[in-house]
Amino acid sequence: MLAQDIHSQSGQEKVFDTGLALRQAVREGRFSGDTAGKAPGLLQGNLAILPKALAHDFLLFCQRNPKPCPIIGIGEAGEVSLPDLGQDIDIRTDVPAYRIFRPGQAPERVDDLNSVWRDDLVTFVLGCSFSFEEALVAAEIPVRHIDAGRNVPMYVTSIETRPAGAFSGPLVVSMRSFSPADAIQAILLSSRQPLAHGAPVHIGDPAQIGIRDIMSPDFGDQPIMNDRDIPVFWACGVTPQMAIRNCDADLAITHDPGHMLVTDIPAETAESRLWGIAQNNNN
Amino acid sequence: MLAQDIHSQSGQEKVFDTGLALRQAVREGRFSGDTAGKAPGLLQGNLAILPKALAHDFLLFCQRNPKPCPIIGIGEAGEVSLPDLGQDIDIRTDVPAYRIFRPGQAPERVDDLNSVWRDDLVTFVLGCSFSFEEALVAAEIPVRHIDAGRNVPMYVTSIETRPAGAFSGPLVVSMRSFSPADAIQAILLSSRQPLAHGAPVHIGDPAQIGIRDIMSPDFGDQPIMNDRDIPVFWACGVTPQMAIRNCDADLAITHDPGHMLVTDIPAETAESRLWGIAQNNNN
Repeated sequence: MLAQDIHSQSGQEKVFDTGLALRQAVREGRFSGDTAGKAPGLLQGNLAILPKALAHDFLLFCQRNPKPCPIIGIGEAGEVSLPDLGQDIDIRTDVPAYRIFRPGQAPERVDDLNSVWRDDLVTFVLGCSFSFEEALVAAEIPVRHIDAGRNVPMYVTSIETRPAGAFSGPLVVSMRSFSPADAIQAILLSSRQPLAHGAPVHIGDPAQIGIRDIMSPDFGDQPIMNDRDIPVFWACGVTPQMAIRNCDADLAITHDPGHMLVTDIPAETAESRLWGIAQNNNN
Repeated sequence: MLAQDIHSQSGQEKVFDTGLALRQAVREGRFSGDTAGKAPGLLQGNLAILPKALAHDFLLFCQRNPKPCPIIGIGEAGEVSLPDLGQDIDIRTDVPAYRIFRPGQAPERVDDLNSVWRDDLVTFVLGCSFSFEEALVAAEIPVRHIDAGRNVPMYVTSIETRPAGAFSGPLVVSMRSFSPADAIQAILLSSRQPLAHGAPVHIGDPAQIGIRDIMSPDFGDQPIMNDRDIPVFWACGVTPQMAIRNCDADLAITHDPGHMLVTDIPAETAESRLWGIAQNNNN
């Protein structure tokens, strides 16, 4: 471990300069915390791992619901590396915490996938909101839950996703509230990051999308809202997790919330980098 | 007059294929109506004509308030053509109706400026919202006042412009209301047209910007708002008109509301075209 890999060495409050450094620390058991803010400027991703028999339907589900499920990487069946997303990735060990879903069992939280890995498993990495939130912070737009050290509030909505095969379920949204002027800027900034859920899906009245009490989120922490704030709702990566939970796979794996795969890709160039990769693969 | 210049010949309901055709019809007295929708796809502009002694301060006012005052063209003192904006423009005759302001007198509506033109007059053309509204319509986003055949409602706000010399006054906004999903799209589409006032300045609660009763606009027609609509407020070209009215020039001229200068510039390429012109002039 190089000294510059870690700016702060107090417990889990480490900040890593490279995705590789963070992933190696995870793999070697030196880091197991959540990854929010731990690798500034680098694209992070939600994880979904499914048997190949379900992979086509899940990919179709993502294509039909690109706002909650922006695809940033897909492995071959059985493949544990993801060379498009980073150097020397081993998806079985490089995420700080995983959740394993099996029919009729409570989700199990594990530190690695060594004992459950199979040659038919297909890895999907989906964009998350961290890089968009970094852009807000960089633009000096206050993000209330970050300023308060809380998790973002998330809500199950009355909006249904477009189903695909075994995958269906409600759209889940995250909420950030802003002054109206900041809300306009947040809409514009987020629209430039389609791989981080893109532009919001709703603004204003929570009841219009089936949220009864904005102060009682279904996931995450209670929001902090200022008097003149307007709530802004973005599609959320919990959406595919709920669809996966309902898909009746004999085995399905996700990251544990907040514990993402950290890539080597600079967030601000993610759109062009990943489009470029897709294009090169097509040629 | 070529047959293709006019699609409909019923009274003032003409639609022109080119800016030149419309301007020539105006100059020759064959067209005197408002220009909304009369030259689809072409950039239209608000007009402000001021004595050279006040021109620097007005330009400074526009630079300091770019959302209400996006500059699309400025003539030399005494110059009546605007070659950057269109072929054979004569600013004294090519706008369907003008307003003349003189100290202590009520504004006077005139059809041309032949009798008042002076060699010290400087012409400013400022972007207007027509091209942005065309983009909304093209995106199939309902624009309530257009669908109802009304003028857009406009409001004097409690927000002050940044003053410059003799020019100051409140920010005036136009309001369009949408479903929340359409409001998000409208914010994104308008942000791509900074020369058509760009992104909105406010969304949601009208009282936050000093509007007491949204159903009683200061200018334009009463709004039509659906139950679940969210109001969205854009900076408006009436802002510089109010500043001009208060500037105590011995002579100041604007277009008559709704009666714009129609340019030859395709609205969708206006940003790059006008930036290109500015760049060429700098070289």
